[in-house]
Amino acid sequence: MHVLIIGGAGMVGRKLAQRLARDGELAGKTVSSLTLYDVVPATPPAAAKIPVKIVTGDLPTAGEAERLIADRPDLIFHLAAIVSGEAELDFDKGYRINLDGTRLLLEAIRAAGHKPRLVFTSSIAVFGAPFPEAIDDEFFNTPLTSYGTQKTICELLISDYTRKGLLDGLSIRLPTICVRPGKPNKAASGFFSNIMREPLAGEPAVLPVAESVRHWHASPRAAVGFLIHAASLDTGKVGPRRALTMPGVSVTVGEQIAALKAVAGDKVAARIRRQPDPFIEGVVAGWPRNFAPQRALSLGFKADASFEDIIRIHIEDELAGRIA
Amino acid sequence: MHVLIIGGAGMVGRKLAQRLARDGELAGKTVSSLTLYDVVPATPPAAAKIPVKIVTGDLPTAGEAERLIADRPDLIFHLAAIVSGEAELDFDKGYRINLDGTRLLLEAIRAAGHKPRLVFTSSIAVFGAPFPEAIDDEFFNTPLTSYGTQKTICELLISDYTRKGLLDGLSIRLPTICVRPGKPNKAASGFFSNIMREPLAGEPAVLPVAESVRHWHASPRAAVGFLIHAASLDTGKVGPRRALTMPGVSVTVGEQIAALKAVAGDKVAARIRRQPDPFIEGVVAGWPRNFAPQRALSLGFKADASFEDIIRIHIEDELAGRIA
Repeated sequence: MHVLIIGGAGMVGRKLAQRLARDGELAGKTVSSLTLYDVVPATPPAAAKIPVKIVTGDLPTAGEAERLIADRPDLIFHLAAIVSGEAELDFDKGYRINLDGTRLLLEAIRAAGHKPRLVFTSSIAVFGAPFPEAIDDEFFNTPLTSYGTQKTICELLISDYTRKGLLDGLSIRLPTICVRPGKPNKAASGFFSNIMREPLAGEPAVLPVAESVRHWHASPRAAVGFLIHAASLDTGKVGPRRALTMPGVSVTVGEQIAALKAVAGDKVAARIRRQPDPFIEGVVAGWPRNFAPQRALSLGFKADASFEDIIRIHIEDELAGRIA
Repeated sequence: MHVLIIGGAGMVGRKLAQRLARDGELAGKTVSSLTLYDVVPATPPAAAKIPVKIVTGDLPTAGEAERLIADRPDLIFHLAAIVSGEAELDFDKGYRINLDGTRLLLEAIRAAGHKPRLVFTSSIAVFGAPFPEAIDDEFFNTPLTSYGTQKTICELLISDYTRKGLLDGLSIRLPTICVRPGKPNKAASGFFSNIMREPLAGEPAVLPVAESVRHWHASPRAAVGFLIHAASLDTGKVGPRRALTMPGVSVTVGEQIAALKAVAGDKVAARIRRQPDPFIEGVVAGWPRNFAPQRALSLGFKADASFEDIIRIHIEDELAGRIA
């Protein structure tokens, strides 16, 4: 089986590539080759059992999607996107990458006529406030960002191309990834990870919102698990509604901090400094807090067991087991 | 106020043009000119009080949307579409007209920077079975046709362009138009109108489904009323969720026939011949039956008062008051 990861240089793409290169198989089928595509060269996974090809390019450029489909990947993970903040600031760039790129990919698949499995990462940004305390699987999509609009449109296109038998697609709506590795960034959601990652590394972190703020999380390891499960799933059980909200862990910031104390001790949690930021509080007030993702659960998608586990996964996967 | 109707040669476009040309004003503003655009030349409305310009062209052709926006229409009705059956049979044509045409129009408006009111006709095809007996305003969009997918995507784009302040858009989801004037056609939904229109004209008609089949209707006059109301509405009251399910009349086929008897007598209703067609019964089984369109009702959109009224409107508007 030939696997293509579009967005192979991103955080989730890298971890997915590592997992596939290590396992050498997926759902009982041998992965014969792995192509990592991105605008910058992806880092080849360490100790790969299988041939890995690194390809760089700009997906919405004419001929680019055809080039990627020319060697007929059996399984395509499409993770590439302009993130929410940038898509909001640069309207043309967001539509070009997040909508046109995906549509050109679907058209190249249709033209090649080989009907691969396509797993697309969508987002909880397809939902916009106001919404119920826990959003169920039949709640409507009213995105309040261009990014959320683009993700919703891609979901619709993938369902329609699937219904027409042109490919076998699934859109999975990832929770906010936590603990996100790397440096603190200026994303409004950054603090959910910062207040865990920085204290665990011996650094201070700023909490800009009240401890009562509730949000929806999945570890990077769980996100890779969702992608692998979506790639392995018997889609005959899914039916025509091909967009699925992934399960996650709904916790308040206060519960995040309690979990940090339980796993790493009071000394680590004391590195969090409260400094309310009305702008960030306002942005976060419009975000989903909780979901009732019954369809994904019944299809066997598995969330992290608890927020403590999310912290433990970060310590294992990013800190080699060591807390500062 | 300069008004542009895209799809001005279609049945609803023609009736809307007649109404605007007769009234000469809309929401207290004088209509200074009316442009009717379509792939075939629209018929100029009779006894127009205002200058009417007939323009023909193919909306998704390069430069065409810019040409339409060049004289800066203050109000645009976008009714043009490839219908459901044809969009399903010709995938490229459906996406080209129903998605690309709309997107090019939005981009031309954005480039011109003049922020018109845009009223777009969407459809109850944005919903796909299974659904509740009455679909409320927060039920999700799971179209089961390419046409429904394209309409949903246009709704999302119009909401996003509106949110960004690039135009002032509203998408209105029309019920099935009944009684549709003209000749019987082969659309699966055709019989809802055929069994009213043909008997009223002294002709036989075939009923291919059980009398228990329930569906959602609006007269052509009500549809024009929705468009005028959407053009006049204070959109400050609508908020960011710019797609609205229009109110309608939910009746069974048996209730349609009872209404025909009440309005036109048993002799007319006796011209309906029962001839079950399992194919049409199957198609219709997946269609919405009823809605709870609270948002549109609270914004002042008005449905026909009853199915009897729908029949009376047909007799007045199409038959000059005479039943055969």
